[in-house]
Formats: sequence, C-alpha cells, structure tokens
Amino acid sequence: METKKNNIIKKGSSARFSKTISETDVYMFAGICGDFNPVHIDRVKAGETVFGKQIVHGALVSSFISTVIGMYMPGPGTIYISQESSFLKPVYIGDTVTAVVTVEEISIKRRAVLLTEVFNHNGDKVLTGQAKVLLP
Amino acid sequence: METKKNNIIKKGSSARFSKTISETDVYMFAGICGDFNPVHIDRVKAGETVFGKQIVHGALVSSFISTVIGMYMPGPGTIYISQESSFLKPVYIGDTVTAVVTVEEISIKRRAVLLTEVFNHNGDKVLTGQAKVLLP
Amino acid sequence: METKKNNIIKKGSSARFSKTISETDVYMFAGICGDFNPVHIDRVKAGETVFGKQIVHGALVSSFISTVIGMYMPGPGTIYISQESSFLKPVYIGDTVTAVVTVEEISIKRRAVLLTEVFNHNGDKVLTGQAKVLLP
Amino acid sequence: METKKNNIIKKGSSARFSKTISETDVYMFAGICGDFNPVHIDRVKAGETVFGKQIVHGALVSSFISTVIGMYMPGPGTIYISQESSFLKPVYIGDTVTAVVTVEEISIKRRAVLLTEVFNHNGDKVLTGQAKVLLP
Repeated sequence: METKKNNIIKKGSSARFSKTISETDVYMFAGICGDFNPVHIDRVKAGETVFGKQIVHGALVSSFISTVIGMYMPGPGTIYISQESSFLKPVYIGDTVTAVVTVEEISIKRRAVLLTEVFNHNGDKVLTGQAKVLLP
Repeated sequence: METKKNNIIKKGSSARFSKTISETDVYMFAGICGDFNPVHIDRVKAGETVFGKQIVHGALVSSFISTVIGMYMPGPGTIYISQESSFLKPVYIGDTVTAVVTVEEISIKRRAVLLTEVFNHNGDKVLTGQAKVLLP
Repeated sequence: METKKNNIIKKGSSARFSKTISETDVYMFAGICGDFNPVHIDRVKAGETVFGKQIVHGALVSSFISTVIGMYMPGPGTIYISQESSFLKPVYIGDTVTAVVTVEEISIKRRAVLLTEVFNHNGDKVLTGQAKVLLP
Repeated sequence: METKKNNIIKKGSSARFSKTISETDVYMFAGICGDFNPVHIDRVKAGETVFGKQIVHGALVSSFISTVIGMYMPGPGTIYISQESSFLKPVYIGDTVTAVVTVEEISIKRRAVLLTEVFNHNGDKVLTGQAKVLLP
C-alpha cells in the first residue's frame, strides 16, 4: 500500500493502492457476495472460456478504488455519490493491481469528480472510470 | 454453477438476489480490499458521522449486482463491459438488501443494457445504475 | 470442546464436541459451499418460513460429527466410509450444539459402525444418524 | 436467492454445482467445524497416510449437495429430511468437483427422494448417496 500522505485535495492530486490478488481473496469475495460464476471459482470451466483461466471478479477489482477514495484521496469523511467503471482487460488470480485515483474537478459545493483507474503489474490498464464524491 | 438454464433473456426479464449483510461480511470485505475507512469498521468514529453508525461499503452493496449478472441474469458466460452505480442511501450492518437486474435493451451484437438496482428491506432504493454486458 | 482422552475404541465408547454456532460460522460456511439459500442468509425471507428465523445449514450441523470422528473417536487415521443423517429439528444461529459419537459395533475387518447424534443446548436431539468407518 | 423459477421438479430432473476446492476452503472449513484431523491440515502427516497428500473433508465435499438442493433442485423452500453419503474416493486440494442432484421419486405427500452424487474433474464418482426432502 502506498499513498501521498499530504492530503492536499486539488485538481491533479492522486493516490494509489496496490495488492497482489490471491486465490483466497477471490474465494472469500465470492463467499461474501455469492458470485460463484464458474469463471471465478471453477478451474475447469474457466479454462474453457475465452479467458483461459480463472479471472478475478470485476467488482473485486473495482473495490480497490473505494479503498483509495475512502482512505487516502479524498480520504475518510468522503461520501461516495457514484462510480462508473469500464472493465478493459481480465485480471487473473496472482496479478498485482494498482488502483489510482486522480482529482479531475472540484466544484464550489464540495463535490469532486475523480478519475479512477486500475492497472495490472504489466502496466496494462484493466479498468477505467469516474467517481463522484462529496468532499469531507 | 449450472442448472436447468431456461433463463430467457429478453427485454423486461429480471432476476434478483437477497442477503442480510452481517458484520462479518463488512469486516471480511474490508480485509480483502483494504478499505478500512472508519465509517465502516470504527464504531466510535462512524457514530460521529452524519450516518450515526457503521455503514456497509458501497462497493460491497454493488457486488450483489455482479452476483445476479454472473449467476442468473444473463448468467454464466456473460462478459461484464461496464457498471455505473449511484449510491442513494446508506446501507447499515444488519440490513437485508435485494439486488435486482432487469434487461433494458438487447442489441444485435449480443450486447445488452441492464438496469441494476439494490433495495433495502424497507423497500428503499439504495443504489441505482446500469450495466453493459456481452451476452453468453 | 471436550473428549474422553483415553481413546479405547470399544462398543459403547463415545466422544463429543460442542460449539456455539455463530452468525459468522453460518456466513462463512455459505461462502465456502455456495449454499446461499435464503433460509440461511436472508433474515427477512427466513422470517417468513415455518422456521421463523435464519437456520443453520444441516450440512454444517453434521460437519461436527466429522470433527468427533476425525479427531477423537476413533480419531486420526480413521477412514470415513459413509454417513447417514436425519435432520430432526432446526438449529438456529446462536444455538450451542453437541455432536456425540458412540461406537455401536466393531467388526473383525477393522470396520466400525458409529451412532452419530447432535443435540442442542436444550437437550433436544437435532440430528441422528450412523457412520461407517475403517479404523486406524 | 430468487430467480425466474421455472425449475420443473419431476422424476429425472437434475441440477449441478461445480467448484475448484482451494486450500482456503479446506482451512476455513476446518476452522468452522473444528475438524483439524492431520490428514486435512498437516502436510507432513497427510503425506505419510495412504492418501499421500492432504485430502478434503468428506463433510465439505458433501456440503455441495446441500448447495444444489437448497438453491436449484428443488431449490429454496425445500426442507432437508435426511442425507446418506458414501465416500468412494479421496478428494484433494485443487480438485474441481461437481455435485449432481437428480430427482428419483416424488410422492403424493410432497416428499422427494433425490440421487446425490459428486464427481471430480476426471469424471470419477467420489461420493454417492441419497437425500430425502420435503418439497417447497
């Protein structure tokens, strides 16, 4: 985990969070939300899909954005208004992903628009999107 | 998961999934994604916020949409293209939520637009949004 | 957890294991096996059933028999041949159950027949059955 | 869970559920039921048994039958009366198992007899048995 610790929230400010996604992460995530889609928890069926092996839930990949927003940029006190995410590439068990949140716009009413991206360890962008939040 | 798949996917088709969100769910979710925002896992600080008590991660609430999409409607084989979610009301530990996915549009290129909503046990809509998927 | 520690396996020998079943147990069990039947994880729907509230998975209740067999009576090295279980009464989250295994018969070929029972904290028998095992 | 329920329950109807059993599944299962038999969670001792390596709890393997019964066939509302299971072959960590439930008999009193089987990814039957249920 890494972040810019001097939380000055202004246009262009950014923070990030990285994690290697383990099999345990994927299995426990499935166990919480109930998404036992075979592409996530069945090695045989996942192997027969276009992905070739088990992939991580998109909802798990995007959860790391919430981590950055809720903890670092803008951080505690932020109220999440909305999140848009486009899933660009599959993420596999064992991949190391980095969620990056960058402030795009701050309005006078304490609202901010954030660019939200997730990259894998090869530098490929796997998710792109936008969050709207109410600043603390 | 597989079952007798007579899921007819057409405009207006819908499926749903319900769960009472336990404290364990919230704690384990925090443990997976690293979002230890006090509003989720610190009873004291959460009590001092506008919410008055610990709330469930928006990303956990929206994960139940992925459950419906990946398992029931459209179901296994669906490829998630994008998800937009607006968080309308807080969800508290112990709330019973129901994620509902309704087919809004199917294009000739196997793409579908889905209305995605989550309700709490009082019938309040807590999340609304839209998913785009590639059908199996 | 309790057991007769002098593991003499003879007709009439018995051992037992007790646990208060927490909400976490039920939620994690659902998360492992994928059984999100609403009667287990949806307080609202469970409340509308004949049970009146969330019940524990029968498969979780019977797993405590495996605990006694695999750890105490007959103990490590035992090979599980078969298990029959009849579910007599519902078990609720928060109930304290005791699994009791009693040796009914030992054959010359190292096979044993075991009486397997589970009681709740009121002394009601909630499960009865029989296991066949190969002794260590 | 609810979905378009056109599950027609008649003699010969069947449903299935598959999962690759991870080390996490086995460890968490042990942590819930307390079955720390070395053959499941001690690589060294398991290696010295006839199995040659850590095996999955039979009770975990049979729990997937409960998943099919409780969620798909017959599905929510079913009341589990009894389960008989014979363990035919060991299941190892990393195996992908498929639980299959087939309706064998339906009586006039809403009772059904179900054939319950679990197969590994090689198609070997690892568990066979029978469940009796009260239909929803």
